[in-house]
Amino acid sequence: MSLQDSNPPQNSGFSRRRLFGAVGAGAALVGAGAVGGYAAGSSSSDAVSDVVDFRGDHQAGIVTPAQDRMHFVAFDITTDSRDDFVALLREWTEMAERMVRGEETFPDGAIGAGEYKPPSDTGEALGLSASSLTLTIGFGPGLFDRFGLSEFRPASLADLQHFPADNLDARRSGGDLCIQACANDPQVAVHAIRNLARVGFGTVSVKWSQLGFGRTSSTSTTQATPRNLFGFKDGTANLKAEDPAMLDEHVWVSPTDDQEWMGGGSYLVARRIRMLIESWDRTVLNEQERVIGRSKGSGAPMGLKDEFDPLDLDSKGPKGLLIDEAAHVRLASKEELGGIQILRRGYNFTDGSDGFGHLDAGLFFIAYCRDPLTQFVPMQLALARKDLLNEYIQHVGSAVFACPPGLGESDYWGSTLFG
Amino acid sequence: MSLQDSNPPQNSGFSRRRLFGAVGAGAALVGAGAVGGYAAGSSSSDAVSDVVDFRGDHQAGIVTPAQDRMHFVAFDITTDSRDDFVALLREWTEMAERMVRGEETFPDGAIGAGEYKPPSDTGEALGLSASSLTLTIGFGPGLFDRFGLSEFRPASLADLQHFPADNLDARRSGGDLCIQACANDPQVAVHAIRNLARVGFGTVSVKWSQLGFGRTSSTSTTQATPRNLFGFKDGTANLKAEDPAMLDEHVWVSPTDDQEWMGGGSYLVARRIRMLIESWDRTVLNEQERVIGRSKGSGAPMGLKDEFDPLDLDSKGPKGLLIDEAAHVRLASKEELGGIQILRRGYNFTDGSDGFGHLDAGLFFIAYCRDPLTQFVPMQLALARKDLLNEYIQHVGSAVFACPPGLGESDYWGSTLFG
Repeated sequence: MSLQDSNPPQNSGFSRRRLFGAVGAGAALVGAGAVGGYAAGSSSSDAVSDVVDFRGDHQAGIVTPAQDRMHFVAFDITTDSRDDFVALLREWTEMAERMVRGEETFPDGAIGAGEYKPPSDTGEALGLSASSLTLTIGFGPGLFDRFGLSEFRPASLADLQHFPADNLDARRSGGDLCIQACANDPQVAVHAIRNLARVGFGTVSVKWSQLGFGRTSSTSTTQATPRNLFGFKDGTANLKAEDPAMLDEHVWVSPTDDQEWMGGGSYLVARRIRMLIESWDRTVLNEQERVIGRSKGSGAPMGLKDEFDPLDLDSKGPKGLLIDEAAHVRLASKEELGGIQILRRGYNFTDGSDGFGHLDAGLFFIAYCRDPLTQFVPMQLALARKDLLNEYIQHVGSAVFACPPGLGESDYWGSTLFG
Repeated sequence: MSLQDSNPPQNSGFSRRRLFGAVGAGAALVGAGAVGGYAAGSSSSDAVSDVVDFRGDHQAGIVTPAQDRMHFVAFDITTDSRDDFVALLREWTEMAERMVRGEETFPDGAIGAGEYKPPSDTGEALGLSASSLTLTIGFGPGLFDRFGLSEFRPASLADLQHFPADNLDARRSGGDLCIQACANDPQVAVHAIRNLARVGFGTVSVKWSQLGFGRTSSTSTTQATPRNLFGFKDGTANLKAEDPAMLDEHVWVSPTDDQEWMGGGSYLVARRIRMLIESWDRTVLNEQERVIGRSKGSGAPMGLKDEFDPLDLDSKGPKGLLIDEAAHVRLASKEELGGIQILRRGYNFTDGSDGFGHLDAGLFFIAYCRDPLTQFVPMQLALARKDLLNEYIQHVGSAVFACPPGLGESDYWGSTLFG
């Protein structure tokens, strides 16, 4: 399962810029002066300040200020051995912690591996900074059919129900576990997923993956609101890291909610939403704004002037309600949903063309919530039934995962579940 | 064909940060103070210094220092009207020039369109800087079967021959024309392609497109060499912008080569190369370096210490030739190819998974050359027949395009061909 030789020392102090320094026939001659030459210039980030803490009360990558790029992978489990699976989780944790620090995958880098072994790291991130990489793990419903885990399955963790107009592709849905890699340099995110998948060979197998080229949400008041591929600011009313009481209420699972092992964790809902951008682009501005319920320019609710002006769902103009009865912001608002809120953390994608002369583009929707059954499901039901936006979108992928809590000093991914 | 209302003024001076300022019901109330709030934070680039010149002797995006991200699209032509097609090329040129400056697609932005028309720009790049966007157009062989253009077809412009082990997917190959968008922010590149495709509706149709998340070549001595997904530095011996004599010899078409209209242009060869990264990752370092012919760490030729040490193909060690007879770097070298050189400008990609538990990842190879038949074809024949790397790659897409020269003051894309 692993390419690693032996127990690695923690905190080796090696940086990604150095690990290949003395490897292989040619490299034995490389002097220290050549090392700086590894910088590939793909990221302008500062190597010192762009490391996100890996350990803490909650997993990073949830309320961490949303990075610009993402690579997301869902795996099937291919082993019947609980020991092998737990060993993989332990090994992944060590790898993830090193990669988040901007180091190579294993502490020996390519050095310990030697020229007659496969390199311990695939190498494409050499010279790139940590790039605010976060790696976030989630467990899918299928995990709990295995390894004697059924009694630990949260009641809220099951494949989502069918929603009206769902057009799901099984090849882009589900999975026994997931890893979300977010970073400001996409090569760093892809490198992390690729190396975790590599080491998982024989234990897990890639079911699907998704590259997101641009964030569509802010998760911190320090961030400006980005735009989705409909050209609108997205997630203006999102929950933010700076409001911990709201996060406790809507995002973080309490140990007394259901399963104790999930205390401090959160549920991740992923929906691949294809946008029919060609239809949208032929729609007049007035109609686009009616569908969304916000001004395209400023992002303000209709009739108001500032993006962050509070929604007034009852406000009227000469022609009646300023925010349509079926506008997206109305149906998704906490006011209409009895106080329901979720943390959105999605990304724009484009994956080639659809074979019919159009780009295959849209929003890879990611939400974190305390309970998908009482938060995401009623919200999506309201939207699926009535949202004006449905004319321009199609949900083509769906998955739900239970993301365990953050890691204490000696924890590994899933240690509250596997012990 | 166009969403544009009337003759736009050139150089309107509007910036992307301002155009939506007074649009729609809500936005009429937006004050100047709110405008700064559009910045989405997706790019750290400086809005002033990151504009690449659109006009010049050669098209931008060829020897321009390779930007970090790319979106590439190939179109089929769907009209029989030469006038409509030329009108599209003229309109595209104006749109492209504005977008490269960091402005919206049309000078009226959303303002001139008004609330009862579709917005003139799709909006997702609002607040993002120019991000060194370049847009480069190329004409495929199929164009010259139309519009009475057959006498202007360059002898070198034809679908590439079949190479040994090619496994081409017709849905990822060919095309009547292409546009390469490169930028340091992928959202800016995707926005540009999306808007050009939108305006082309009824005249052209997207055949295929490809997102590249990380550059794999440098085209300037000011850039460090990046790494491909095999973890090796790629394109160390690439032609560079700082050597104009070499570019004249190997990249830029002379007006006396064949077709006068191509003088100052170049031929673009695109190959989607799937990398079998799982096999590669299980290969020992020694073998990886033998396959490539360079040290993985430093990028130096085997037996040498610096990336830019000149290749010595005859150098020997205790076990014989240091650079294997069939090493990639040997077979692709100008020494073995009778002096052939090309300008490489490729990108790493990952497009989900392949359905067999692996990432669909690889290199989207782009090369510019003066004549594909005497440069790319013999090089690829040598590689396809003998390259050790063939065990780990598969060519799955292929296309070739004639990129016309750069634009003078009153030129449009293709004006040397269409007059």
